[in-house]
Amino acid sequence: MSLYTETFYAREITELFSDRSAIAKLLQVEAALAIAQAEVGIIPDSAAKIISDCCVIDAIDTISLKNDIVLGGNVAIPLVKQLTKIIKNRDFEASKYVHLGATSQDIIDTATILTIKEYLIWLEEKLIRLEKTLLIQTKNHKHTLMIGRTLLQQAKPITFGLKTAGWLESISRAKDRIKDVKKRLLCIQLGGAVGSGNANITDEVQAAFAKNLQLQEVFPWQSQRDSLVEFASFLGILSGSLGKIAKDISLLMQTEVAEVFEGAAESKGGSSTMPHKRNPVSCALILSNATRTPGLVSTMLSALPQEHERSAGLWHAEWETLTQLMNLTSGSLVKSVDLIGNLEVDKDRMLQNIEITNGLIYAERVSLYLSKSLGKMQAHESVKKACATAIQKHKHLKDVVLEMYPKIENIEELFKPENAIGNSVSWVETLLKKYS
Amino acid sequence: MSLYTETFYAREITELFSDRSAIAKLLQVEAALAIAQAEVGIIPDSAAKIISDCCVIDAIDTISLKNDIVLGGNVAIPLVKQLTKIIKNRDFEASKYVHLGATSQDIIDTATILTIKEYLIWLEEKLIRLEKTLLIQTKNHKHTLMIGRTLLQQAKPITFGLKTAGWLESISRAKDRIKDVKKRLLCIQLGGAVGSGNANITDEVQAAFAKNLQLQEVFPWQSQRDSLVEFASFLGILSGSLGKIAKDISLLMQTEVAEVFEGAAESKGGSSTMPHKRNPVSCALILSNATRTPGLVSTMLSALPQEHERSAGLWHAEWETLTQLMNLTSGSLVKSVDLIGNLEVDKDRMLQNIEITNGLIYAERVSLYLSKSLGKMQAHESVKKACATAIQKHKHLKDVVLEMYPKIENIEELFKPENAIGNSVSWVETLLKKYS
Amino acid sequence: MSLYTETFYAREITELFSDRSAIAKLLQVEAALAIAQAEVGIIPDSAAKIISDCCVIDAIDTISLKNDIVLGGNVAIPLVKQLTKIIKNRDFEASKYVHLGATSQDIIDTATILTIKEYLIWLEEKLIRLEKTLLIQTKNHKHTLMIGRTLLQQAKPITFGLKTAGWLESISRAKDRIKDVKKRLLCIQLGGAVGSGNANITDEVQAAFAKNLQLQEVFPWQSQRDSLVEFASFLGILSGSLGKIAKDISLLMQTEVAEVFEGAAESKGGSSTMPHKRNPVSCALILSNATRTPGLVSTMLSALPQEHERSAGLWHAEWETLTQLMNLTSGSLVKSVDLIGNLEVDKDRMLQNIEITNGLIYAERVSLYLSKSLGKMQAHESVKKACATAIQKHKHLKDVVLEMYPKIENIEELFKPENAIGNSVSWVETLLKKYS
Amino acid sequence: MSLYTETFYAREITELFSDRSAIAKLLQVEAALAIAQAEVGIIPDSAAKIISDCCVIDAIDTISLKNDIVLGGNVAIPLVKQLTKIIKNRDFEASKYVHLGATSQDIIDTATILTIKEYLIWLEEKLIRLEKTLLIQTKNHKHTLMIGRTLLQQAKPITFGLKTAGWLESISRAKDRIKDVKKRLLCIQLGGAVGSGNANITDEVQAAFAKNLQLQEVFPWQSQRDSLVEFASFLGILSGSLGKIAKDISLLMQTEVAEVFEGAAESKGGSSTMPHKRNPVSCALILSNATRTPGLVSTMLSALPQEHERSAGLWHAEWETLTQLMNLTSGSLVKSVDLIGNLEVDKDRMLQNIEITNGLIYAERVSLYLSKSLGKMQAHESVKKACATAIQKHKHLKDVVLEMYPKIENIEELFKPENAIGNSVSWVETLLKKYS
Repeated sequence: MSLYTETFYAREITELFSDRSAIAKLLQVEAALAIAQAEVGIIPDSAAKIISDCCVIDAIDTISLKNDIVLGGNVAIPLVKQLTKIIKNRDFEASKYVHLGATSQDIIDTATILTIKEYLIWLEEKLIRLEKTLLIQTKNHKHTLMIGRTLLQQAKPITFGLKTAGWLESISRAKDRIKDVKKRLLCIQLGGAVGSGNANITDEVQAAFAKNLQLQEVFPWQSQRDSLVEFASFLGILSGSLGKIAKDISLLMQTEVAEVFEGAAESKGGSSTMPHKRNPVSCALILSNATRTPGLVSTMLSALPQEHERSAGLWHAEWETLTQLMNLTSGSLVKSVDLIGNLEVDKDRMLQNIEITNGLIYAERVSLYLSKSLGKMQAHESVKKACATAIQKHKHLKDVVLEMYPKIENIEELFKPENAIGNSVSWVETLLKKYS
Repeated sequence: MSLYTETFYAREITELFSDRSAIAKLLQVEAALAIAQAEVGIIPDSAAKIISDCCVIDAIDTISLKNDIVLGGNVAIPLVKQLTKIIKNRDFEASKYVHLGATSQDIIDTATILTIKEYLIWLEEKLIRLEKTLLIQTKNHKHTLMIGRTLLQQAKPITFGLKTAGWLESISRAKDRIKDVKKRLLCIQLGGAVGSGNANITDEVQAAFAKNLQLQEVFPWQSQRDSLVEFASFLGILSGSLGKIAKDISLLMQTEVAEVFEGAAESKGGSSTMPHKRNPVSCALILSNATRTPGLVSTMLSALPQEHERSAGLWHAEWETLTQLMNLTSGSLVKSVDLIGNLEVDKDRMLQNIEITNGLIYAERVSLYLSKSLGKMQAHESVKKACATAIQKHKHLKDVVLEMYPKIENIEELFKPENAIGNSVSWVETLLKKYS
Repeated sequence: MSLYTETFYAREITELFSDRSAIAKLLQVEAALAIAQAEVGIIPDSAAKIISDCCVIDAIDTISLKNDIVLGGNVAIPLVKQLTKIIKNRDFEASKYVHLGATSQDIIDTATILTIKEYLIWLEEKLIRLEKTLLIQTKNHKHTLMIGRTLLQQAKPITFGLKTAGWLESISRAKDRIKDVKKRLLCIQLGGAVGSGNANITDEVQAAFAKNLQLQEVFPWQSQRDSLVEFASFLGILSGSLGKIAKDISLLMQTEVAEVFEGAAESKGGSSTMPHKRNPVSCALILSNATRTPGLVSTMLSALPQEHERSAGLWHAEWETLTQLMNLTSGSLVKSVDLIGNLEVDKDRMLQNIEITNGLIYAERVSLYLSKSLGKMQAHESVKKACATAIQKHKHLKDVVLEMYPKIENIEELFKPENAIGNSVSWVETLLKKYS
Repeated sequence: MSLYTETFYAREITELFSDRSAIAKLLQVEAALAIAQAEVGIIPDSAAKIISDCCVIDAIDTISLKNDIVLGGNVAIPLVKQLTKIIKNRDFEASKYVHLGATSQDIIDTATILTIKEYLIWLEEKLIRLEKTLLIQTKNHKHTLMIGRTLLQQAKPITFGLKTAGWLESISRAKDRIKDVKKRLLCIQLGGAVGSGNANITDEVQAAFAKNLQLQEVFPWQSQRDSLVEFASFLGILSGSLGKIAKDISLLMQTEVAEVFEGAAESKGGSSTMPHKRNPVSCALILSNATRTPGLVSTMLSALPQEHERSAGLWHAEWETLTQLMNLTSGSLVKSVDLIGNLEVDKDRMLQNIEITNGLIYAERVSLYLSKSLGKMQAHESVKKACATAIQKHKHLKDVVLEMYPKIENIEELFKPENAIGNSVSWVETLLKKYS
């Protein structure tokens, strides 16, 4: 339902995936090809000039184009037809040189790479912004005490900064990955009908074409789609990493936990029937996207074994799938920047929640302390017993332990959260140096 | 890329998934709710009448609606707001009764079911048409000899009717499945905020609401999505069965095989650079869709474990995914009806292809024949040897066998394709009775 | 890691998927074929008797069998070779009639169906047990008050019985689905090399074969796998429905929620470092399985477009995938039976949790009440304001509302959970009648 | 069905994934931890020595271990229990220091990374071998003429070397990707219960632990699984690239094409009923694996949003999934090395197949030639007409064109395959320099 485009996607980048933009990119590639062929001396400069001048989106009849796609099976065939007609009307001679020696896939694949390149510039900028925002939260909450949770159970105290530092690292790795993906991905595809080139698609033309489009020159990859799928996987992984952040926040927003909240925008997250609710709306949408991306990546992977020099169906399966992956990931990213930037943190509630187990979360700490004298196994068993007693009698673990081991020294220190966060602070400090 | 909507989807049914249609269905549900509540005596008839009258798509500002969805996280919240305003302008009293006691999910889920119901009527009609077309081809080609292939190797002769009968059976089972899916799926969702109902959402209201919408009344399923996913799986399976047909035809259309062809529409399947080609364009698009549907079904399955009384993200992941599944499947179905109806079959080429192994495909037949005297293992070995000789010396298997077993009787009969098709004809005839 | 077989699977049924059991089923099919052919008069009764007698698993050399599979690409080829040798040693004449006219896929597919049939009997029995357990919990907790939650936020009170009733319905629908799946699935596959039959694979042989194995006779489906994938989808849906239950319970077990617990088995759910923890171990494993099944169903769907009369790879992709789906689903089911049967419910905590929002969860109720006099929109806005005040000033909503509307009658009644559960009790009672 | 382990996996590497090997890796990690803690002065050297000495696989009771996994939910809990008992029997004091300060996930995750590291060494070596083999084929077939095919239709001549060069490039990129994946992946996980470290898990311990295991030291990633999923995606992409090669070969092996064949091993690819067949057995198994890997990668992606400091289910979903991905990819790789190394190429048949369209495949060439005088559009139309005539009258395109344009010069040259392969030879030569 396109009804939800604005909901799941990022408005600021959806234009890049509009019909208009898609066709403009295809025309840009046709123009670049003609210019490259002119530079190399294969076609007249004047023809290249005219072709290039005619490669403007406003000249194209989009409605009839869409109708014709279904007949040829891809957009380049009817587009070249329209384009040639336009040029012929202007200069018959020039019309002979449109799309010369190229094949549909050359144009479509290269246009896709141009789109991805533009997308990645946008994405990288957003990732940097998210990284910065996470960095700020990590600095701000370096000392903010909260409970750490494993298997959805309270485990031991940590700091909120330790948690956001983990999120930060995953985003930082996403930034690294972009660099690696780009090395293999931002390349032209120009090989002619079967990827062998021809008199009009030569080494020199490839080089000029690549230079014009600021892409790398590579051996034709029209039925070797591994780098495209690497990019798709990158998107899926990023969506998942953002999903992990959203998952944590949505759980922390639970009424019974109430430690962290999405910033309240006007009328955001309201329920139609329960006026008091503060729903994790952004988290829900990011999680929704993270639920959808794995299946889309799986489609891209399934489309890898493309037959011979061009596939009958698998190539086609990539088109909308890749666009959706880009749109969903950008939607999650924009929402995440906003989410992290406006996060509300209730430090008091975090401290209160640390206390709700009546000291049980300090059990490991007590166990480690006792293990010095009792050995690990016995200390473990002993504390397990103490915990059972504390639960059964609704007593604080500290009191139970004190009854069992009355001579224990400084027991208060064992039950202070700030003493129980291990190296949370120092590890975060070490990490922050990497980012400064 | 919506550029390709016409390419992958079925034009005649995409309107059902338009923004306009989606909103209209939501309004229809709101109207049905008000009417049901009036019938039961919960709200005044006059109010229900006014609400119902106001539930018209043209009154809704779609642009602002879309902008607001992202704030509330679903379409019902801003829609109810707009609707209430419209009604208030007309009759303040009536505006109190809009969406009374219901929750967003009640409206959205029930509207989805109404869409599916309409979709299934269309789909069933198309399936019947495809079944009929397959039935005709099966009858027509009951005796059409061709080679059967396993692991992409020529195996033994069959008839083309035997092949299409297999396709037919899969489509017939899809029709059966619709009946089963419907039993559990075509139900209202009406439970209020947490599925418990309330003074305005009672048994009686549910019954009246269900009756108005011609759906079944069931226990609320707002976070039990199994029947919806059953429907999604059904679509995935149908897309895959259509993919199987397209796969076979695309392989039979190969230049080196050339037995069966997509009907040639004007300018369909032409290549921009190779004017002679006759590409399997429809097959490619059907196969493309079949490549995309498994990932989408997987998303629907992943979205099953929805938290508590409404999920934070998993519900949202269903919306566009299900729509895409319906659109891709309908696209494949429409293309398949056309594909099967206009199939061109080259019987001569089929006969020629049977001969290209120099009789090797009759090896099993010879082996079975010889096994009567030699036993299965020895016959198998003996024929294997004969085959090796035939291949090595470029001789016809018949001649090699005759050299090895000069006394063999009626050897000609062993090498006639019409004698080697087993029960192809009788089995198809038996099957056809089921459909008459 | 087979290390985890016991963890994710159901021990009591894994034997069905052992090498031994798989081979035994294949032998059972070979025996049934010989007997069928004897019944029809195609082979001597004595031969069928000998073949049948030799079809015993202990005669097979499993190690060498496994080595040979990779050469032929499937298990039937080397198995028939071994079997024929065994029989030849006993009776040369009989050895001629082994596997007569059949193809590998006939044997493997039919054996798979036999395995599924046995599996479904087990599964159905477990589903009935789970249904019963859920029924008991639903009856027991018909009146147990708890908070309903949407988007992970407290929404309105429900009963625990209403929640379990939703679970129950999904399991009941799974039981229904088995019936539908069986209709299309429990069929023989017997068509010979290319599905056309032959002199030894006739209508009569098919009928006798089907009767011997207590399966239905159908048109060969060797490359039409829709019913198998329907079964796979069924398993995926069931795993997901069980995942939904486990998701709810794992969330309810959170330290901060603590309403419901997995029954504590000796040393179950203990942490190696935190002796006090009570981890949702069974839930985690069920959720793990529900995370894995969607991808496996997706594989089955991807494998649908099988080429011609037998696929080169797609058929093979089904084998282990389907077995894993069966194992994961049975693992989840067994764990769920245990989980539901031993669930510990803390009713007091449920009541306490209802109170933690200071009455905010009654906001809708208050809103509905006020809407009688103010209209829905104004009541909604007014209550929203009251909620904001309550949150800001840490006051109970009741007090805030009373300040705003001092004349409000019976305000206590608006804030009693038992008055706020809508039709939870009556709807569950109505539902229970269906099961009695 | 483990029956098929040998079929789909690589025998030489499956041992790495055995129970024994998995447990040994876990013990290696426990030993490395004790040694690291001793090096840093946290525990006595003597204790570390004893712990390390006891970390031997033969001391472990695997059967009881497996039974206990299900209770704790992971393998580390019962393993540490067994290990501590063993050490206690030998030295009570030392037993206090086992697993000190660590959590199950530290041990399991780090052991997984050790397994992956070993796996990657093996994989890289195999990729180099495959690359070499592809390089040899590319050199050998630099001039081998064959037809290029798009959408399964004959398109234009290429060389077989051009085709294998495309395969080669995809494998070369896989090698590159390993380097990138390693940078982020080959790291320890050591953070204690909630990833915050503690007195026994310090910076220094991490450093020593990392050094001992020859892994990198990083911030704990226990619930940030992006690098693991990046590795899974890498495997999925590689499986898909190998699938592409297998797809091409299986299509070229078709009886009607017969240009390229899997090397014939003794009894490989034989059919149980058709002694003459030469099935693409290795291709089928590689394609089967490529059909299964996308769903498994999708599972890994779905498991990314892990809750808080350790997930209840998503972490568990990785274990068997990742192992299967590694096994399936290694299976495909080993089969591919063998497949490419033993490929049989029928050059004569390739030449014959070029001719079967009666010159139609030269249509583009003729069109390009004529476009010099007629312009591209008109030449295209003209040649399209000529093709239609050729098809209809069963004439060679050359003759038809000659009738239409009698004055055409050197028409023979237009119809020679070696003149129609574009830059196939020079491009491959350029590419080969990169590899020399």
